[in-house]
Amino acid sequence: MSEAALTVAIEPVRDPHLVAAVEGAGGRVVPLEQARVLVWLAGPDGFPTLPDSVEWVALSYAGIEAYLTAGVLDDRRLWTNASGFYAAGCAEHALALLLAGLRQIPASVLLGWNDEVIPPAVRTLRGATVTIIGGGGIGRELTPRLTACGARVIAVSRSGRDLDGADLTLPATETDRALGEADHVVLAAPSTPSTHHLINDRTLGLLKPHSWIVNVARGPLIDQEALGRALRSGAIAGAALDVTDPEPPADDDPLWSLPNLIVTPHIANPSPGLTREMAPWLAENLRRFTAGEELISRVDPARDY
Amino acid sequence: MSEAALTVAIEPVRDPHLVAAVEGAGGRVVPLEQARVLVWLAGPDGFPTLPDSVEWVALSYAGIEAYLTAGVLDDRRLWTNASGFYAAGCAEHALALLLAGLRQIPASVLLGWNDEVIPPAVRTLRGATVTIIGGGGIGRELTPRLTACGARVIAVSRSGRDLDGADLTLPATETDRALGEADHVVLAAPSTPSTHHLINDRTLGLLKPHSWIVNVARGPLIDQEALGRALRSGAIAGAALDVTDPEPPADDDPLWSLPNLIVTPHIANPSPGLTREMAPWLAENLRRFTAGEELISRVDPARDY
Repeated sequence: MSEAALTVAIEPVRDPHLVAAVEGAGGRVVPLEQARVLVWLAGPDGFPTLPDSVEWVALSYAGIEAYLTAGVLDDRRLWTNASGFYAAGCAEHALALLLAGLRQIPASVLLGWNDEVIPPAVRTLRGATVTIIGGGGIGRELTPRLTACGARVIAVSRSGRDLDGADLTLPATETDRALGEADHVVLAAPSTPSTHHLINDRTLGLLKPHSWIVNVARGPLIDQEALGRALRSGAIAGAALDVTDPEPPADDDPLWSLPNLIVTPHIANPSPGLTREMAPWLAENLRRFTAGEELISRVDPARDY
Repeated sequence: MSEAALTVAIEPVRDPHLVAAVEGAGGRVVPLEQARVLVWLAGPDGFPTLPDSVEWVALSYAGIEAYLTAGVLDDRRLWTNASGFYAAGCAEHALALLLAGLRQIPASVLLGWNDEVIPPAVRTLRGATVTIIGGGGIGRELTPRLTACGARVIAVSRSGRDLDGADLTLPATETDRALGEADHVVLAAPSTPSTHHLINDRTLGLLKPHSWIVNVARGPLIDQEALGRALRSGAIAGAALDVTDPEPPADDDPLWSLPNLIVTPHIANPSPGLTREMAPWLAENLRRFTAGEELISRVDPARDY
């Protein structure tokens, strides 16, 4: 592979950040008919008929269900999605929210230089146990970030299959134990009937008065009324949500008045600037392609079908 | 060492968090006369005459100058300070401040669910270049936290001696280049005549419109009036300060009205809860002592004199 020119089509629009990534990786942006690589920045509607020259299609969405349903994927070339990119964004945002809570940054913004309320409420990740609910890509990306901060990680995965780097992985049937051992909790699981209102009055009672809960997954994982009660009573220290139910919360939702609740407007992977942030990630995958190395976020149609 | 009982004196007060750490490490808290280890929670005033039984003294301060001046240290046993502990606290706080800025957490706290202003301002550490000014303990602790988030690290050290894990270390004479290549900057250098107002009108001009500056070192490293000008004009994206000059800023300081400035009240290592946070760190050093391993933050009187 390394001898042929790195010709890349970027469709349906030639995004300038990704054009720069291609050129920075030593490639050239060309029409689809001349391309070895197609970067496809849309859903399955309008997906082109691929010429034989295309060896690799880089899809820019995290989920591939819609492409599978549309019958777009074939086994004549490599396919990648962007799940790793989005998972990393969620993991970074989860870390930002958790640290903001522990480090009392919202309180500092609201109260100014307050020597009495803020310092006693500061907590650290060093030596803390963080339970991640969810054994998928977000958990895989979050774990090394947390351990670099000196935290111990307990992961809960549906199957109980070990999450790389976690100190302990438990199956979903042991969620109560994972919550009971946690100093702090990050929700990173899909929204399913079995995760609906996973955080409720009962499970909130398993946490500690210094615990923070972070949700970067889906709003319905939390019973928000129960969360409001726990935040008002001091049963837990705080919560930080990038997703809510409904989204956004109503203007008169009592959650808005809670000083120990952080709400960000679903910005783990914000649309504006997305291709700018994606550019170095694409560049790395182009480098791997040229070097003949394993691609990030490769989709195996045989496995994923 | 591993055969004798782990007897530890905690003076001048038997802090309950550290007592728990000793007992959790399999040790026993005893009067100084029976101790192999002394954990000393104060300055050199009142430092006791040590019995021969004491093999290791764990000082709880970061700096040892005062103990050196008082002639407390000898070469008849091991000595440790808490510099590694404090450096880790500063590094965690620096990461929290930088991520809070990039992830628009203060704006979310102030503006609520705002879909127009917030998402386009969100930035990520993935693929970003972070310049750390300072090649000491804070930089050593911060570097792995940043690289775990996918950032590239440039360190500036007085000598130019490589900072472990940094992608590039430059000597202080190349500070301008380090600022010019940075997406974001963390100040982690001591306050000296040569670092006074290191961040000023001229050096702020080397940064990018999306740059955030974080200061967890000392307030005088920044010319705050110049910083205010850069924040108002949009020359840089934001700043997050855990230290200021003076400290705290005056109530009528115009800095307080800047929406892209985060100020936390010097809480990288807050006094309340300090021994609670220090407990797992002490436990780890007790484990190493028992195992005959190298201690964290060992002070070498011969080198440090």
